[in-house]
Amino acid sequence: MSLKFLGIAGSLRQKSANKGLLRVAQAKLPAGVTMEIADLADIPFYNADIAAKPAAVQRVLAQIGAADALVLACPEYNYSLAPALKNILDWASREPDNALLAGKAAAILGAGGGMGTSRAQYHLRQVCVFLDLHPLNKPEVFANAFAGAFDADGNLTDERLTQLVGQQMQALADWSQTLRR
Amino acid sequence: MSLKFLGIAGSLRQKSANKGLLRVAQAKLPAGVTMEIADLADIPFYNADIAAKPAAVQRVLAQIGAADALVLACPEYNYSLAPALKNILDWASREPDNALLAGKAAAILGAGGGMGTSRAQYHLRQVCVFLDLHPLNKPEVFANAFAGAFDADGNLTDERLTQLVGQQMQALADWSQTLRR
Amino acid sequence: MSLKFLGIAGSLRQKSANKGLLRVAQAKLPAGVTMEIADLADIPFYNADIAAKPAAVQRVLAQIGAADALVLACPEYNYSLAPALKNILDWASREPDNALLAGKAAAILGAGGGMGTSRAQYHLRQVCVFLDLHPLNKPEVFANAFAGAFDADGNLTDERLTQLVGQQMQALADWSQTLRR
Amino acid sequence: MSLKFLGIAGSLRQKSANKGLLRVAQAKLPAGVTMEIADLADIPFYNADIAAKPAAVQRVLAQIGAADALVLACPEYNYSLAPALKNILDWASREPDNALLAGKAAAILGAGGGMGTSRAQYHLRQVCVFLDLHPLNKPEVFANAFAGAFDADGNLTDERLTQLVGQQMQALADWSQTLRR
Repeated sequence: MSLKFLGIAGSLRQKSANKGLLRVAQAKLPAGVTMEIADLADIPFYNADIAAKPAAVQRVLAQIGAADALVLACPEYNYSLAPALKNILDWASREPDNALLAGKAAAILGAGGGMGTSRAQYHLRQVCVFLDLHPLNKPEVFANAFAGAFDADGNLTDERLTQLVGQQMQALADWSQTLRR
Repeated sequence: MSLKFLGIAGSLRQKSANKGLLRVAQAKLPAGVTMEIADLADIPFYNADIAAKPAAVQRVLAQIGAADALVLACPEYNYSLAPALKNILDWASREPDNALLAGKAAAILGAGGGMGTSRAQYHLRQVCVFLDLHPLNKPEVFANAFAGAFDADGNLTDERLTQLVGQQMQALADWSQTLRR
Repeated sequence: MSLKFLGIAGSLRQKSANKGLLRVAQAKLPAGVTMEIADLADIPFYNADIAAKPAAVQRVLAQIGAADALVLACPEYNYSLAPALKNILDWASREPDNALLAGKAAAILGAGGGMGTSRAQYHLRQVCVFLDLHPLNKPEVFANAFAGAFDADGNLTDERLTQLVGQQMQALADWSQTLRR
Repeated sequence: MSLKFLGIAGSLRQKSANKGLLRVAQAKLPAGVTMEIADLADIPFYNADIAAKPAAVQRVLAQIGAADALVLACPEYNYSLAPALKNILDWASREPDNALLAGKAAAILGAGGGMGTSRAQYHLRQVCVFLDLHPLNKPEVFANAFAGAFDADGNLTDERLTQLVGQQMQALADWSQTLRR
């Protein structure tokens, strides 16, 4: 088995707990899996009037195209998606035949308030229907970022959640294998 | 009666049909109502690391604060919200005591594919719960942008939809009055 | 002020924590408010082939028609609504001009797993759009039924949640007054 | 290939267009696939106080257990699910280890108003997350039951939709094969 995951975090802030979740995912990959993390810092809003894709967009779209599966760290802002996460998926969806995304596996996880970003995650799952992504059903990862599970730099310090993220990465590897045969 | 509406369109493209819907709303206001349209062109992604609000953000937030009610023209991208619309609401939500938004009336309308952006509009309604906005239940406005109702510049040319937008503006004026007593 | 609330719980089980929430609501009503609780035990599934409304349906629809506002205790089954709650609303929606429901205020609360039935509650809010009910935005009431807040008979024993339900009833009385002028 | 599908329609009415969709699905099965249709007529509301499963429930749960994949004909009542469809899934979900449902493929289709039951179908997809069902992303089937596509007995007479249902059954057979290896 040799699989490439791409992690994308919807929060732009340096010390984001959602970025912290991706670092844990990276540290807990099954054997044979590698994982890059996308940088959304310079990605502009999608706008059909923009004739040529900016370089930052091209770079992330190339990473998405090269990935076997996506690891989507999904913050919750006001009971729905973080615009930066939705926006890169919107950019990616504009390729002919949905070639960057169609049929790929995905894992969704998130750190936020008491509901652990669940309200946003179900919106993201609806987006995945159109994008033809196949998110894992289980395990879902809902992390409370305000209950001591993360340090001030956004590093996950909770052991149970760390294990759960590792289990999710294993499940994603298995699911990717199932889907790509 | 003297009421101020603020129109916000989630599409950044010049010839957007959603911008066209706002122009119709402006043309169909009840007596005593005025309506500005926000310009989202220079609004950056919300990011908690940005210490001072950029001028473009300040300008739109001032418009939101001055408005009695919001008219939200909601595109649908990949079965959910346009990031630019969600993003300005996220910026607005960060004021102390939610002072710019709490308790205000809103109308939601949208132009898109065959479902008329309904999938995105229900996500927006969930956002309104947290923002403490009160969107109208009826009439809902779902415009198909690909069935001849708009010209190439995004102007609405369909008479039935034009009347419906006018009815929605009347309903929003009534609803705003109900809520602000 | 004189207001009538009607409580409806989506769980049919005798010792339901959702029924317990309604009992607390009844005990915490503001002055001038009375509240009945509907009995869904004999309500059949809505079926357009049933020519005459069964007596049990007629009885609850009469209660709904007489109420100024609804208090909806919303369990979560498999991430969505309890059929018994949805079903009585479906029956109520079939009256001419939506006369039993249109424009009425509602409060939503629920007891369930760790998310406190939030996933079901947002589905219920979408139903309210079509029914032209106006649910309170705040306070939302999410009770964890498996963390010691209820006794074995479904009685709420948690003081913070008891206060919160009382605040919600006060908010519902205020909101009903706003809407019915 | 040898696969068993089970069709479940959420409408109880004899001449339901959703039942009509299932008949078309049955007529358009790929080679090697058989499909039964569940009868929900005598299924009571799920209630944890009911100690022994009624015979009608046992019969349908046995059909679900024997099926490789589910074909869910999903009406839309008041912008969400038909209680009868949700209810049989709730009954099925109570088996130890979710043994009747876990990991199975599903197809969702529906006949209703102008949105073709899409609002209900996205709620059903959220239910599938918890049930660990894997609904097809594409094709989605949204049939307008009030635009001449069905006759008075609920038979689908529209050729394009008939073909689309056939394509969905082929996709479900392929997807079931992918998932069960």
